[in-house]
Amino acid sequence: MSSDTQKVSPEELEKIDAYWRAANYLSVGQIYLRDNPLLRDPLKLEHVKQVLLGHWGTTPGQNFIYAHLNRIINQYDLDMIYISGPGHGGPALVGNTYLEGTYSEIYPEITLDAEGLKRLFKQFSFPGGIPSHVSPECPGSMHEGGELGYSLSHAFGAAFDNPDLMVACIIGDGEAETGPLATAWHSNKFLHPAKDGVVLPILHLNGYKIANPTIFARIGKEEMDNLMKGYGWKPFWVDGEDPAYMHQRMATVLDEVIAEIKTIKEAAVNNEQFGRPTWPMIILKSPKGWTGPKEVDGLKVEGSFRAHQVPLSDPAHNPEHLAQLEKWLQSYKPEELFDEKGKLLAEWQELAPKGDRRMGANPHTNGGALMRDLRMPDFRTYALDINMRSMPGPGDTKVLGGFIRDIIKLNMHNFRVFGPDETLSNRLNKVFEATGRQWIADTFEEDEFLKKEGRVLEVLSEHQCEGWLEGYVLTGRHGLFNCYEAFIHIIDSMFNQHAKWLKMTSEISWRKKLPSLNILLASHVWRQDHNGFTHQDPGFIDHVVNKKASVVRVYLPPDANCLLSTMDHCLKSRHYVNVVIAGKHTSPQWLNMNEAITHCTKGIGIWPWASNDEGIEPDVVMACAGDVPTLETLAAVSILRNKLPDLKIRVINIVDLMRLQPASEHPHGLSDIDFDVLFTKNKPVIFAFHGYPWLIHRLTYRRTNHHNIHVRGYKEEGTITTPFDMTVLNQMDRFSLVQDVLNRLPQLGERTAYIKEDMKNKHIEHKNYIRKHGIDMEEVRNWKWELS
Amino acid sequence: MSSDTQKVSPEELEKIDAYWRAANYLSVGQIYLRDNPLLRDPLKLEHVKQVLLGHWGTTPGQNFIYAHLNRIINQYDLDMIYISGPGHGGPALVGNTYLEGTYSEIYPEITLDAEGLKRLFKQFSFPGGIPSHVSPECPGSMHEGGELGYSLSHAFGAAFDNPDLMVACIIGDGEAETGPLATAWHSNKFLHPAKDGVVLPILHLNGYKIANPTIFARIGKEEMDNLMKGYGWKPFWVDGEDPAYMHQRMATVLDEVIAEIKTIKEAAVNNEQFGRPTWPMIILKSPKGWTGPKEVDGLKVEGSFRAHQVPLSDPAHNPEHLAQLEKWLQSYKPEELFDEKGKLLAEWQELAPKGDRRMGANPHTNGGALMRDLRMPDFRTYALDINMRSMPGPGDTKVLGGFIRDIIKLNMHNFRVFGPDETLSNRLNKVFEATGRQWIADTFEEDEFLKKEGRVLEVLSEHQCEGWLEGYVLTGRHGLFNCYEAFIHIIDSMFNQHAKWLKMTSEISWRKKLPSLNILLASHVWRQDHNGFTHQDPGFIDHVVNKKASVVRVYLPPDANCLLSTMDHCLKSRHYVNVVIAGKHTSPQWLNMNEAITHCTKGIGIWPWASNDEGIEPDVVMACAGDVPTLETLAAVSILRNKLPDLKIRVINIVDLMRLQPASEHPHGLSDIDFDVLFTKNKPVIFAFHGYPWLIHRLTYRRTNHHNIHVRGYKEEGTITTPFDMTVLNQMDRFSLVQDVLNRLPQLGERTAYIKEDMKNKHIEHKNYIRKHGIDMEEVRNWKWELS
Repeated sequence: MSSDTQKVSPEELEKIDAYWRAANYLSVGQIYLRDNPLLRDPLKLEHVKQVLLGHWGTTPGQNFIYAHLNRIINQYDLDMIYISGPGHGGPALVGNTYLEGTYSEIYPEITLDAEGLKRLFKQFSFPGGIPSHVSPECPGSMHEGGELGYSLSHAFGAAFDNPDLMVACIIGDGEAETGPLATAWHSNKFLHPAKDGVVLPILHLNGYKIANPTIFARIGKEEMDNLMKGYGWKPFWVDGEDPAYMHQRMATVLDEVIAEIKTIKEAAVNNEQFGRPTWPMIILKSPKGWTGPKEVDGLKVEGSFRAHQVPLSDPAHNPEHLAQLEKWLQSYKPEELFDEKGKLLAEWQELAPKGDRRMGANPHTNGGALMRDLRMPDFRTYALDINMRSMPGPGDTKVLGGFIRDIIKLNMHNFRVFGPDETLSNRLNKVFEATGRQWIADTFEEDEFLKKEGRVLEVLSEHQCEGWLEGYVLTGRHGLFNCYEAFIHIIDSMFNQHAKWLKMTSEISWRKKLPSLNILLASHVWRQDHNGFTHQDPGFIDHVVNKKASVVRVYLPPDANCLLSTMDHCLKSRHYVNVVIAGKHTSPQWLNMNEAITHCTKGIGIWPWASNDEGIEPDVVMACAGDVPTLETLAAVSILRNKLPDLKIRVINIVDLMRLQPASEHPHGLSDIDFDVLFTKNKPVIFAFHGYPWLIHRLTYRRTNHHNIHVRGYKEEGTITTPFDMTVLNQMDRFSLVQDVLNRLPQLGERTAYIKEDMKNKHIEHKNYIRKHGIDMEEVRNWKWELS
Repeated sequence: MSSDTQKVSPEELEKIDAYWRAANYLSVGQIYLRDNPLLRDPLKLEHVKQVLLGHWGTTPGQNFIYAHLNRIINQYDLDMIYISGPGHGGPALVGNTYLEGTYSEIYPEITLDAEGLKRLFKQFSFPGGIPSHVSPECPGSMHEGGELGYSLSHAFGAAFDNPDLMVACIIGDGEAETGPLATAWHSNKFLHPAKDGVVLPILHLNGYKIANPTIFARIGKEEMDNLMKGYGWKPFWVDGEDPAYMHQRMATVLDEVIAEIKTIKEAAVNNEQFGRPTWPMIILKSPKGWTGPKEVDGLKVEGSFRAHQVPLSDPAHNPEHLAQLEKWLQSYKPEELFDEKGKLLAEWQELAPKGDRRMGANPHTNGGALMRDLRMPDFRTYALDINMRSMPGPGDTKVLGGFIRDIIKLNMHNFRVFGPDETLSNRLNKVFEATGRQWIADTFEEDEFLKKEGRVLEVLSEHQCEGWLEGYVLTGRHGLFNCYEAFIHIIDSMFNQHAKWLKMTSEISWRKKLPSLNILLASHVWRQDHNGFTHQDPGFIDHVVNKKASVVRVYLPPDANCLLSTMDHCLKSRHYVNVVIAGKHTSPQWLNMNEAITHCTKGIGIWPWASNDEGIEPDVVMACAGDVPTLETLAAVSILRNKLPDLKIRVINIVDLMRLQPASEHPHGLSDIDFDVLFTKNKPVIFAFHGYPWLIHRLTYRRTNHHNIHVRGYKEEGTITTPFDMTVLNQMDRFSLVQDVLNRLPQLGERTAYIKEDMKNKHIEHKNYIRKHGIDMEEVRNWKWELS
């Protein structure tokens, strides 16, 4: 720990203090005032909002940090962004971006004068105004702060491949209790000190949450130090409440920290054999609701949980509260801060950086503005040559691996692959022909693919993978998260917030479109035969389609060529979350590349070579979505066409699940007329689906022929068993599908009885066989499509 | 760190080693063999399974730990259970529970002889057999190990209120990278050393995940020590690979650890002013795949990621693999371990504890066996007296608080409330009249309700709350998790695993039914008007209903009396996850207690006092589920009945959402006949729903009148605004509902045009009013039900 030798001049500290007071004043103003913004009249009840909503507690600390960061940005010409982990500190970020001028540039009606101040105050937490957290509306924000836990992961995501960027990440001590944040500290084992940017965590030991103390505030300095050292950081404390001392101390620490960072980066630039750096981080311990009312109604407020939201809660009925509010606002001496018109005085304004150096204007926080398109190889060149329908492929994701490898080669600083230790397990092996796994900790001889610089980031935390990728995408770069299907639910809530961010930013004119966030779910529900029931859950799709149709897409490519075409489309798309579900095991291939492109472009279509209803209305439609459902459907079609050659079957395959929804509900939705043409108005539809069967009903319930759609899918039946048995347990296997068809075609009469009997016998035969041999019977394992 | 002075006798160590070798032998046998279990014939290909599935890597380390824990159980007469964090170590736990005899007691066909061994081996990871992880089928397991991250939270949940229990929690270094595990270490700030049990974490530094090294294995001993000290633990290292040394070291460390634990517990028993203890934990650093093949095909296996699953992968095509497998099995010297019949020799058998002291037989791991019913106060005595329909209540959860308080009083060691710092925010204030928040870290004067012993556990981690509660419930106790609705998605994946555990255990005859896991979602989507869009997500219901109908229940009580009745039912229920969604703000009350009981018992019903269709078929059905939808529906009904007195309206309220499903799909489902009687076969149904509207379609698509059901609900529109405006933005407000009704009743003709116009004007009036005043207009805020 360093000494407090004074380096920053008293004049500079005075400037910082004035700026801080101005930001604090604006913060209190936002929470309370709808008029009299400069307090030039005595404060009256009608100047105060009727409903008081906001979070004061974290705000003065964040204002303090912001002001000090402004100084070092100027002093060292830093390219710095600010991530607000304690997300409800909206007034701080709004106030600071207003002071530095960015707010008015973006929202010209919020002028830099008394009238603008009044508007700034009124809009906060007010109908038609802005939220109380650091929301997409706030310039300089790239981090949705509603739910807590992801600030540090986002910070690292932003820093990767931005060697000149410094990300100040303010972490609340409440947020620090969450699991995702608790593991995000380990991100320092993955950051390349020369090729990536810097993350400067500032843990704000604010002391309290809504109603409880925080853990970190009650374990003492030694444990706190040990914890940060254990996480591989070097902690610097800024601890106190006297502003004069705290300004001096914070300034000194920031100078020291910048010096350490410089040393680390230079060492890595000059020596490729650099060891893992111990990056500095700051622990700012200051009272919650700092500079606010010390006591209200006889109870301690500043420095307690009572400062969390609105310290003076009832000025309307309690004149004492109103008087205290006025005194509180006056304590910042607004008359020393703002000029006659209501603008910050020029002498304080100097503290704000200029142009894009202002944290509110830094283009990294509006990542679409910096986005460069990916350089894409031609996906067609990775095509599998299909010499026969149902030809066994090497595993669809394995084929995809070559395409991803070459995307990596062409985009060495603009694309990354993220995964929880599963990139190999998901059979994307070929990416390691072009790159390694980035890893800055120790390596041993027997390690594979670990490199100081690599395009793949793997950690056993889906939260981290998703959070890093979000940060990477939010700052305008491209990426792919590969994950086991069942465990993607771990990030359900993170997906929610990202989807909400996409929805909101698409409605804000100055926000540019972002690269899509791409999720590849391999190791899916139907091939968890050896991991069993816990690894079986296809419900992420259900979760995704609850979000705004304009920002979500779900794809189920049935084979490798379709997967290539789909992934090409996803990686070129903008401002979506794309979810792609694909198999990794060897599995039958259906379409050559041209067919695949046509099919994926339409997203849904009849497979004429599998159907025999050409030119006429079919007797039955057999629909399928997903690789395993497609296989079982086609195997069922073979049985039916062999046994009942006059039965007219139409086979429909769905790649783009959103095609099923009405056009009114989703931009990809088929028109009702097109849907009727495909699915008929009155014929039975047997639909084999990758996920939970009811999702198909939810997507199609408005369609003409909906009451004839019979869906098979995963219905929570599974265990350790053979791949084919998984489909049997869920009645989605070929023998069940044949029975489903026959049961819905009573007009065929008695001549189908023997077929149904046959199918039941097949089930018994199958059961007996696997119990004995532990593998699927020959007939199933080696099934081939043999119709023309 | 202590010295390695020898305390445990060589004879004892020899016994431990033999037991360990036997467990290792059984583990390899399970992964590979289907015959020749004692290797009494030369190993041939036909003795080996055709498909090799299993996880060797973690297994020998877990066998090592299990054997050593057996010794201290005997030595100190410990009541100990074993939680296997690295969940795929199934062969270890199955093997050990077989050796100690519990396995054969539960599964008599798996006898303690060669024939039983053969069956034990064959069933592993085999169709019709058992999964490869420590699954519900495995005795001694209370922790579903499919997804990683929750072992330590479960361990603490098991330890709360079990003062004599010691929970050995084996944590994989892969699992330790997950967020939930990373924050679970802080649970030690919540455990009462005298009133709760002990958690002994054993971090297994196994070195590798599937394909990568683990972070913890590559940060060095000093950082690892700092990290554990920072988390508030005292680490003890057992580090090496030579079995002789490791046995001695592990035994010594365990003796030291037990002594420390004893000291801590005694100090707390003798002195109420005890400080927060620094509990011991063990770091076991041993090679991955310890004692397995050192090298296969020229590549390092033992001590590398290649040992993760099946080290010798291809004995069928590689005779070298088969020979290596035989050598490997022989290396454990089975002839010294098993008698002629194939039973473990008595001299080694002595290491196994007796009866319920065996970890596989400990009743805490079959929690239903220990479960005591809650002593329940009469919920009727907390009823709100309803003197008028729509009477404003104080907030439904606030009323519930009194009931929960008294449940706490009556069940001081059998019931707990969990929450992420939101118990007060969710208005369960009254619980603090009976108890405090349990908190073992420092306290300050201004703190509220913090106590060393308390029934409420609050930490800002939904993962922890859910994990603790799961552990508490899995060991047979009762609890309630209160959470903001939007952020319950954080534990989607944990819910999945718990629901799967419930489904599987309900199919296992020796597993007893567990207390239900109860989740109360207050602070719901419709009243996040001041937190905004990020806090709005009612999709947890959608997630829940994907799981097996037999284990999930969803309730939407419309008022306080219904909430009391519902919660009484949930807390008395068994083996479900109950999700209850209720409001915390002051809101209208509808039913007196008798009506509420009748209504909640049926779960769905016509509200005759709100309807005017008595004795005849209605013109329209207005259905509602949830407190806010109920309010808006009744307000719409008032408007309609006032303006069109001859319009016959039936009002249906749904408390138990599962009543909407067909009886064939859910045990609570209404029969089709009952559904038709309620909802008619052909009248328009306007349904105001708490959640995403399409969920109602998914639940009702098979119903006769489904095509006439028009649902309003949350459709991802929201921001900071007024409570009523939230319903307007999503078109679920009274004025929209009136228009919905009229639009579906064209037979009313032109006389409704002015009403529609009126409703549109109300929307404009509302918009203008809130923009000006920031609150809802008088007419809405003070609306009352004034019909008879």
